[in-house]
Amino acid sequence: MSKKGPLTPELLRKIDAYWRAANYLSAGQLYLLDNPLLRKPLAPEHLKKIVVGHWGTVPGQNFIYTHLNRIITKYDLNMIYVCGPGHGGNSIVAQTYLEGTYSEIYPNVSQDAEGMKRLFKQFSFPGGIPSHAGPETPGSINEGGELGYSLAHAFGAVLDNPGLVAACVVGDGEAETGPLATAWHSNKFLNPITDGAVLPILHLNGYKIANPTIFARISHDELEDFFKGCGWTPRFVEGDEPVRMHQQMAAALDWAVREIERIQQNARTNGDTTRPRWPMIVFRSPKGWTGPKEVDGLRVEGTARAHQIPVSVDPEHPEHLKILENWLRSYRPEELFDRNGALIPELQELAPKGTRRMGANPHANGGLLLRDLRIPDFRDYAISVPAPGEVEGQDMVELGKFIRDLLKLNLEARNFRLFGPDETMSNRLEAAFQASDRCWNADQDSRDDHLAPDGRIMDAMLSEHMCQGWLEGYLLTGRHGIFNSYEAFIRIVDSMFSQHAKWLKVCNQLPWRQDISSLNYILSSNVWQQDHNGFAHQDPGFLDHVANKKADVVRLYLPPDGNCLLSCFDHCIRSRNYVNVLITSKHRRPQWLTMEEAIRHCTHGIGIWGWASNDQGCEPDVIMACCGETPTLEVLAAVTILHKYLPELKIRVINVVDLMKLQPHTEHPHGLTSEDYDSLFTVDKPIIFAFHGYPTLIHELTYRRHNKNLHVRGYKEEGTITTPFDMRVQNNIDRFSLVIDAIKRLPQLGNRGSFLIQLMKDKLIEHKQYIFANGVDLPEVRAWKWNDGKGIY
Amino acid sequence: MSKKGPLTPELLRKIDAYWRAANYLSAGQLYLLDNPLLRKPLAPEHLKKIVVGHWGTVPGQNFIYTHLNRIITKYDLNMIYVCGPGHGGNSIVAQTYLEGTYSEIYPNVSQDAEGMKRLFKQFSFPGGIPSHAGPETPGSINEGGELGYSLAHAFGAVLDNPGLVAACVVGDGEAETGPLATAWHSNKFLNPITDGAVLPILHLNGYKIANPTIFARISHDELEDFFKGCGWTPRFVEGDEPVRMHQQMAAALDWAVREIERIQQNARTNGDTTRPRWPMIVFRSPKGWTGPKEVDGLRVEGTARAHQIPVSVDPEHPEHLKILENWLRSYRPEELFDRNGALIPELQELAPKGTRRMGANPHANGGLLLRDLRIPDFRDYAISVPAPGEVEGQDMVELGKFIRDLLKLNLEARNFRLFGPDETMSNRLEAAFQASDRCWNADQDSRDDHLAPDGRIMDAMLSEHMCQGWLEGYLLTGRHGIFNSYEAFIRIVDSMFSQHAKWLKVCNQLPWRQDISSLNYILSSNVWQQDHNGFAHQDPGFLDHVANKKADVVRLYLPPDGNCLLSCFDHCIRSRNYVNVLITSKHRRPQWLTMEEAIRHCTHGIGIWGWASNDQGCEPDVIMACCGETPTLEVLAAVTILHKYLPELKIRVINVVDLMKLQPHTEHPHGLTSEDYDSLFTVDKPIIFAFHGYPTLIHELTYRRHNKNLHVRGYKEEGTITTPFDMRVQNNIDRFSLVIDAIKRLPQLGNRGSFLIQLMKDKLIEHKQYIFANGVDLPEVRAWKWNDGKGIY
Repeated sequence: MSKKGPLTPELLRKIDAYWRAANYLSAGQLYLLDNPLLRKPLAPEHLKKIVVGHWGTVPGQNFIYTHLNRIITKYDLNMIYVCGPGHGGNSIVAQTYLEGTYSEIYPNVSQDAEGMKRLFKQFSFPGGIPSHAGPETPGSINEGGELGYSLAHAFGAVLDNPGLVAACVVGDGEAETGPLATAWHSNKFLNPITDGAVLPILHLNGYKIANPTIFARISHDELEDFFKGCGWTPRFVEGDEPVRMHQQMAAALDWAVREIERIQQNARTNGDTTRPRWPMIVFRSPKGWTGPKEVDGLRVEGTARAHQIPVSVDPEHPEHLKILENWLRSYRPEELFDRNGALIPELQELAPKGTRRMGANPHANGGLLLRDLRIPDFRDYAISVPAPGEVEGQDMVELGKFIRDLLKLNLEARNFRLFGPDETMSNRLEAAFQASDRCWNADQDSRDDHLAPDGRIMDAMLSEHMCQGWLEGYLLTGRHGIFNSYEAFIRIVDSMFSQHAKWLKVCNQLPWRQDISSLNYILSSNVWQQDHNGFAHQDPGFLDHVANKKADVVRLYLPPDGNCLLSCFDHCIRSRNYVNVLITSKHRRPQWLTMEEAIRHCTHGIGIWGWASNDQGCEPDVIMACCGETPTLEVLAAVTILHKYLPELKIRVINVVDLMKLQPHTEHPHGLTSEDYDSLFTVDKPIIFAFHGYPTLIHELTYRRHNKNLHVRGYKEEGTITTPFDMRVQNNIDRFSLVIDAIKRLPQLGNRGSFLIQLMKDKLIEHKQYIFANGVDLPEVRAWKWNDGKGIY
Repeated sequence: MSKKGPLTPELLRKIDAYWRAANYLSAGQLYLLDNPLLRKPLAPEHLKKIVVGHWGTVPGQNFIYTHLNRIITKYDLNMIYVCGPGHGGNSIVAQTYLEGTYSEIYPNVSQDAEGMKRLFKQFSFPGGIPSHAGPETPGSINEGGELGYSLAHAFGAVLDNPGLVAACVVGDGEAETGPLATAWHSNKFLNPITDGAVLPILHLNGYKIANPTIFARISHDELEDFFKGCGWTPRFVEGDEPVRMHQQMAAALDWAVREIERIQQNARTNGDTTRPRWPMIVFRSPKGWTGPKEVDGLRVEGTARAHQIPVSVDPEHPEHLKILENWLRSYRPEELFDRNGALIPELQELAPKGTRRMGANPHANGGLLLRDLRIPDFRDYAISVPAPGEVEGQDMVELGKFIRDLLKLNLEARNFRLFGPDETMSNRLEAAFQASDRCWNADQDSRDDHLAPDGRIMDAMLSEHMCQGWLEGYLLTGRHGIFNSYEAFIRIVDSMFSQHAKWLKVCNQLPWRQDISSLNYILSSNVWQQDHNGFAHQDPGFLDHVANKKADVVRLYLPPDGNCLLSCFDHCIRSRNYVNVLITSKHRRPQWLTMEEAIRHCTHGIGIWGWASNDQGCEPDVIMACCGETPTLEVLAAVTILHKYLPELKIRVINVVDLMKLQPHTEHPHGLTSEDYDSLFTVDKPIIFAFHGYPTLIHELTYRRHNKNLHVRGYKEEGTITTPFDMRVQNNIDRFSLVIDAIKRLPQLGNRGSFLIQLMKDKLIEHKQYIFANGVDLPEVRAWKWNDGKGIY
């Protein structure tokens, strides 16, 4: 049975048998409810009534996994397996079952006939497991339901893990997605000394759901040029004859491991961080390899028909049962499993041992390796605020100093990175560059600022997809990170966030999945001040998107000033298993709270700002609520006007930092009880609520609250390049419009109200005339200070 | 001044002068409020108080545009310009002003000193124009605020436009995004006979906002390999010395045009559709070329410092005024513009004439070319429905037949395509393949189905980004199309949709932008039935996302059955300037309405289903509302149970097809008035509302309605691989849970209600036990038919 190659006939035979075992278990998961070892003739009652799952990618992945096991053992590799193709769940489940990890985690699914029966039944079955390599799958950090993120996850995993190799199987369907297409360039951000290696294996399976794949249908030269152009050295393993393929694959993997070792040794011995050409493998095998060749006269193996279920068995096609039985028996289970249903010892020996097994590698259950960050005391970065509004500051600039020291304190531990799509400087986190450079391992030149192969700021690739994918990979392998982005363009990764939130939700139900660090978004350059950007850069809807996810996973913070931002941020980076979203300001803004007040305010998440209110000791006439830095500013300016012209009007100012406080406590753990909400907002007084995002989100969150006298202003998709204040005017969230809003709900004011409304309308006209002539805001708006810093009382 | 190359000294001099004129106007837009021709010494009062905009990409783009003008005239090309780099607005504005288009569209911005002053003032100024190539910019079909879509737009534009060339400048920052990275492969979907050509010009500007770009910092070999691997023939134009660069660029463009002509002539003469290697240009020039070399001792030209404003002039830096003046005068405006401020005639001659000018090309204002579709009568595809629920059908299969004939009827006009990411078959539009193949121009083999270079179904690339980008390009150039996708994964293009919706909103305010066909989404494989997919494939939130956009642009339809789907679809494909979203079912489902009833129901968008209600002539006790195919099914099943056990209970069944009916008519043109809403939903009776998506969306839309006795069920992020019915149970939207919901709001039922609740709870337990044992739903659930097809009365 041997052909030329590195495998001895003995090893070749065993590897092929192991592969057959994996294929058998993978196919069994699709079909079998009973008779797991086929010790009886296959009968309809042994089959699932509905067979749902996929076969196409499975035998190829089983082949790859089996061969990776060999090199792990041979070279004592610390390797994880990233399963890119969407539908290979049964392959990874089969492999981790064979190597023993599956039964260790799920003892019920034991390594015997009874356990095998359970293994088969649970797959794609109610109460069972999904057909992707989801969180339930040992060794997985990439579900693959939504495609395109495997390579970014693999790179995120090996950052700061110099001993780790991430073998990443990229599906050729997945390879057509945008995120995967640009991920090949991640090799420009890898430091061969301090990071590990990614070994991409492009699985040229030939077909997607219903179509051939592009990479399978271009010339060999184009394929080779493409990967060389992306900076890789590709090696091809192609064919359909198992023996030849085993030898080719073994040789290719030996080569790849030696290349990785050569590169790393050179880099680490000589301190040479020059970007190497890392090895990769192009693995071309037939889709649904070893499955039924033909069904009903149509070719199946090697076509898109092998994508899901290669042969469906139902009462109308009794002959299909025989096809299925022949197929399953072609793996000769009787040679592979012993009397009890366990894998025979000589095959068991092929699997790596202990945590070298890819299903048991702790990096793929990153919480096992998670160490706390060293965190400076955020109070040390406090902005001194002698009185509300007396000083100005730039929230993000101040936060940058905290992040700078956070970077510094964890430089040695190498377990914290800052991510962003070329926007870290624009988002005003410039102080961070005092602590670390940007990570960059393409060519450099004398004009460059802060670029280094060892940089910890992952900011030099213009791709939100890569920032998100790398960060997810980094977090899932037990480290910490932050993603800073423009608020509008975070929507580019809406669906990646969703998948991560779903992953976290499922992990929360799996006791063996250890806690990981939260995914923290800092969204700046927000909708309210764009200057040279305008309409295309305005979208506060990520808040809406996140708010739809499971309450035990998501947290939304809108700090009104720098001290609140510091306090919230400190809270976020200490948290586990959440997605935290921070909406921040990068422009000069008045500062409202001392650090002590900020901590108290952020701890409550919502509160009355007594210093801006004059309803002490009585029910207010009106509640002016604000959430977000710009709404806070405008509400306070509106309150100044109201206090001045209508001093007897009792106003309560409420600021919301933690958006989920608005939801009932029955829906979100942060939500206020009905009593607490009513005591803040009353049950019937008018609430003028100025909100950072789309007004509908406030309606949605407060839907069940008693006080329906709620009037929300927020972004209503108006705006282009204009002045900061005019953006607010265009969306009716400016001070003048808020005053009008309030008075309209206070008919008791009579003529005095009408007078003030007219005054406000005149102001709005004056504003428009002024900006069209001068291009800047009215001097009185620019010069406005909260009661000139003197406080009201 | 001449160096070797195709340009005569005379032409070289003129082209350089034209380029200088464009650069002058581009810089002028950034800075000048007055003194547009610098006929006086530059003084602070001539400057904008706040200077916002970008310079980095501008001179390179001006260079490219000027040279494209030359080849347009030389070869009489029909060419449009797609501006990829994010911030080149002032370049395109300057160029279209020079060629005369700008003043034709905006007569106030005339080609004289006064007009130039207006041109300068309006840029990035309140009441003026944005700094991107937005809808306001003549000749633009790609705004570039969010990056990555230029190449897909360019390909969409040339599909079925065999005479068109789309010159597409790709920014090297943009080139790092996922969507752009995969867009290079669009050449596998171009038919050289019936489609036009895309000429990509990669602008290697060297830097993004703050970082170098990857493509600028890999070796020449890698760059060349990369593009060869993507199937292009790249030619390099590199340098910083204008004269040499003019000659190089002229030669390169001559080559590219001849290559395109050679390829097209061969294909068209010989009927040879073999995928050619199309030409492309890599254009490397310094960022901020010709701008200030150095400011404050720091290098600016050729660095990221040239990205935005290369020199800021303010009272603290009086010397910067001189730098600015020297820079502006370096273009020698006095040589370029005549006494009146118009471009001198010898330069005017360089611009193409009439609609050959890229700013005036009708393809870039596609509504000018829009022709109505030939549309079959959708009534011909009606499903016969003798009584509600009596027959079953697959909505998407039926729609497929309509789309098949739609494809057929418009084959000759070549102005309609169907787009999808490898899911058209899975979404059950299989009949469409009877009318056309899939578009595919990579290699083929004998196992392939329905692939052809001339196919009109753009389904063979697994990339939602490409489907969306191609379709946008196709629509913006005056054609029609549909995008079918899995509901969950349409979120991959959340942000692309947003940008398109924003584009449409602005176009609605520009009288010269002609109406274009709506962007139609058919979202199937929806959240409620995933079979082998599960949690990762469940996300109905695109509805929420779309609902946040401007009401005059977005429409959301959830047809409950096949006839309603046909009726809604027919409406959508006839509409203009909208984004229409259709949420559909692909599985076998009971059919409810005859075609006549469906038309009436869809025309109203919402209505009482009298045949399922028993409240005729009186106020109902409870309203059972449903929106979406699965909620409709379960509400009707719940009503059957309620009718059976509580026959005297007066139930009103309301079905919602057009989701925006729920919003007040003051917020959305489709919204119901308060009176109409109240007459349907009453002001206080309990409403049990089963909704397809997240329940919060219904709360949000109905926030201002009187009846607050509303209880919404929908998707609450629960589900994995399980049975269809169990998905509903997990989210409490199943019939048993809905009955419990209703009874809880009807305390007057007393013990009889409690009894029924207990019965329902028993059913839920029975259900769980049954599916865990059998893997399929309870027989009674599978067999359920609406009152056995007999109707209730």
